[in-house]
Amino acid sequence: MQLLNAVNYSFPLLASTTETADSSMVVAAVLLSLVVIYLASKVGGELSNRVGLPPVLGELVGGVIVGISVLHLLVFPEAGTDSSSSLIISFLQSTAGLSPQAADSVFTAQSEVISVLAELGVIILLFEIGLESNLKDLMAVGIQATIVAIVGVVAPFAAGTVGLMTLFGVGAVPAIFAGAALTATSIGITSKVLSEIGRLNSKEGQIILGAAVIDDVLGIIVLAVVASLAKDGEVDVTKVIYLIICATAFLLGAILLGNFFNKSFVAIVDRLKTRGELIIPAFIFAFVMAYLAAVIQLEAILGAFAAGLVLEETDKRKELQKQVIPVADMLVPIFFVVVGAKTDLSVLNPAIPSNREGLVMATFLILVAIIGKVITGLTVFGQPQINRLAIGVGMIPRGEVGLVFAGVGAASGVLSKPLGAAIIMMVILTTFLAPPLLRFVFPDTDTATDSEKLILDGAAPSLTIEKPALLESETDLRES
Amino acid sequence: MQLLNAVNYSFPLLASTTETADSSMVVAAVLLSLVVIYLASKVGGELSNRVGLPPVLGELVGGVIVGISVLHLLVFPEAGTDSSSSLIISFLQSTAGLSPQAADSVFTAQSEVISVLAELGVIILLFEIGLESNLKDLMAVGIQATIVAIVGVVAPFAAGTVGLMTLFGVGAVPAIFAGAALTATSIGITSKVLSEIGRLNSKEGQIILGAAVIDDVLGIIVLAVVASLAKDGEVDVTKVIYLIICATAFLLGAILLGNFFNKSFVAIVDRLKTRGELIIPAFIFAFVMAYLAAVIQLEAILGAFAAGLVLEETDKRKELQKQVIPVADMLVPIFFVVVGAKTDLSVLNPAIPSNREGLVMATFLILVAIIGKVITGLTVFGQPQINRLAIGVGMIPRGEVGLVFAGVGAASGVLSKPLGAAIIMMVILTTFLAPPLLRFVFPDTDTATDSEKLILDGAAPSLTIEKPALLESETDLRES
Repeated sequence: MQLLNAVNYSFPLLASTTETADSSMVVAAVLLSLVVIYLASKVGGELSNRVGLPPVLGELVGGVIVGISVLHLLVFPEAGTDSSSSLIISFLQSTAGLSPQAADSVFTAQSEVISVLAELGVIILLFEIGLESNLKDLMAVGIQATIVAIVGVVAPFAAGTVGLMTLFGVGAVPAIFAGAALTATSIGITSKVLSEIGRLNSKEGQIILGAAVIDDVLGIIVLAVVASLAKDGEVDVTKVIYLIICATAFLLGAILLGNFFNKSFVAIVDRLKTRGELIIPAFIFAFVMAYLAAVIQLEAILGAFAAGLVLEETDKRKELQKQVIPVADMLVPIFFVVVGAKTDLSVLNPAIPSNREGLVMATFLILVAIIGKVITGLTVFGQPQINRLAIGVGMIPRGEVGLVFAGVGAASGVLSKPLGAAIIMMVILTTFLAPPLLRFVFPDTDTATDSEKLILDGAAPSLTIEKPALLESETDLRES
Repeated sequence: MQLLNAVNYSFPLLASTTETADSSMVVAAVLLSLVVIYLASKVGGELSNRVGLPPVLGELVGGVIVGISVLHLLVFPEAGTDSSSSLIISFLQSTAGLSPQAADSVFTAQSEVISVLAELGVIILLFEIGLESNLKDLMAVGIQATIVAIVGVVAPFAAGTVGLMTLFGVGAVPAIFAGAALTATSIGITSKVLSEIGRLNSKEGQIILGAAVIDDVLGIIVLAVVASLAKDGEVDVTKVIYLIICATAFLLGAILLGNFFNKSFVAIVDRLKTRGELIIPAFIFAFVMAYLAAVIQLEAILGAFAAGLVLEETDKRKELQKQVIPVADMLVPIFFVVVGAKTDLSVLNPAIPSNREGLVMATFLILVAIIGKVITGLTVFGQPQINRLAIGVGMIPRGEVGLVFAGVGAASGVLSKPLGAAIIMMVILTTFLAPPLLRFVFPDTDTATDSEKLILDGAAPSLTIEKPALLESETDLRES
């Protein structure tokens, strides 16, 4: 009779009796949250696009507006808030008859679901970016990307740590933590902006993307070092060696696997005859790779990116890119809006004493954060025509990766309140400044992609029965 | 400093310290669950298709195999199981270093997320079915569909209730409950099978779909009557009148809204210039309608279906249908595999005493369930050429709606254990029998759609640069 308890389909009538009530309310709360997220992302993205900025900036700002900082529509329990501060939960209580007793559990479940959807969003984003990138092109700029990544880690780390210790008298361990937070690069934000301004497959775009991937791996190693330092005062060398071996093995393994796996993937897909014959095997592969990356303590998004790179080598690439677009359109905005919604702008409020003290340090950290990454462009050799400034600027946004460092620092207890606030300010400003800056350091973007877009729009009807949505490069072009 | 606690992005290194650990593990568990779900749906769907049965049957069976009945890969806490019985959680413990203390909370969160994804799956399915249906065609068969629905509710209810009372000496209230469970029709399973065999837009398909929608509304009213009867021994007339008014208002409102809303939707979409300019506004509309339907105590899927019907009237229909396909391919299988995974076949085990007693009643209920729906085809008038058997068979599957009735019955405590088991057996058998039966009562399906498919495959390359995935009717044809 277990099945009798196994029922949790939405059925509002049961609200008063069984646990189906909660489940139905959770679905209602998730639906409302998605409506809020989509409205925020579309209004923000469109307005941002109108004023010539990348849509993703508008999605982030839209998230801030519906999130913890302003409207409180989309809040998360980790921010120390409970269900009473969520306007969506209050709305459910007044419209859908959600009982106050059930409010907390619905709030927790809804937040959990939205957070996982956001994670799936960034996984799909990196899978799509992988599908749009070419492994050979990336390998061709491999050495340059590696140098950019290493300089982009070492320079801000050294300048940040030494500066905090000498100029502000901060202790060694907290200074090292702040320095570590300066090393991050948000591969999600950077790659999304590059895709939006149609520069993902430019030489500069490939170097930035490659460097951001390597930076992500380096960041994981730096975090392992710093976290063990904060915990025991010494570095866990075994863990660091383990991480380096795992990361190298995973990336090399993914590249080698590519050559071997391509043909079997195509062979399997060609034999399938039911719906989803291409996208489901592709997602199985992407999710397995994401899981493997997570299990060996890399990030899930790196696995999804590797899976995209591998499938880009197959002749299913175009069809797959086309099918992934609507899925990405559905899930990716959730990620950016949630990042915005979780960003608490109150750290920027100078009326709070610890913020005032932090503001001075924050100014220093932001300068180091920008200069330390911008100089990485100078290290690119043998490319006289390259836009060095664009490469440096592309490495600036700290985004969600910077927030992870800040979170670990807060959890370890080594950061003073002003220093913690300063790190958050640095992360917020670099994240929100990078998209417009990137847009402006590629000065010819506007004309180039607008004219390309016009050509495509004009040519499309005669080529196909559809709008240019069919053309392979549409992801890069549509939003220019 | 709230943001310091607001970080819950996946970062496995933090496993030992903060709540990020849980979140990262939840994402890993969801990724693994999705891999299991997709493997089950693809293997099951393809095998089912090979032997000439609808793929959705294979997805349901695939779900049974990975679920509570066989492999225990995908189990849910509502079934009375805890994290130790989930093989996915055990796998995470051995591969990803999930701590036993965190296992229960990860298990709960993962189940919550997968359940909501399944709900989103059936919402997207009904949205897609709505997009493929034509309101005028549906209204043209409206009266016939209404008669089919009413007969399909009254006949099995009367025969079941009276039969149980007279033949088996069951009390009035439990007999009425069992009779009510016999009235359900699973719109999800029926519409999916019709779509798979390419019959959604046949006259028969439209009558079945219309009747299933009306049946869903009638079912909600029947359930309200029965639930209040079980609770107080008398019928809550106010609630019944409220439900009838709400359901009528919602359906009429959606139809009227269609004419008014169409143009503004197209006007808005045409002004948007960033990615997702069509699918995101469409999802906002679908989710708002789903939410409204849920709030006025109908089902969310009815709202999504109405939204699909409204948008089918716009000239964005074709492009939208095409974009919804990959999203449906990703989410819909989750629903069917989860329905299968939650189905506990142990009620069919004659070694359990209450099952043995229940088996006799189950045989009776199954006969009533099939005959009571098959006769509905006979009520269709003025259509000499129509396949009456197909219409009756299309109404047979009880699916998730039948499980809801069983769940309410169990919660109310009025059902004896054997009667409860008998209802579950009836639901399982009608659900799993209907897809192959439907496939066989449309005898010319195979030839018709295969030849159409060949024509499309052959014609496609010269028409467009893509496979027939572009053509409007592909959803109906691809899986025939």
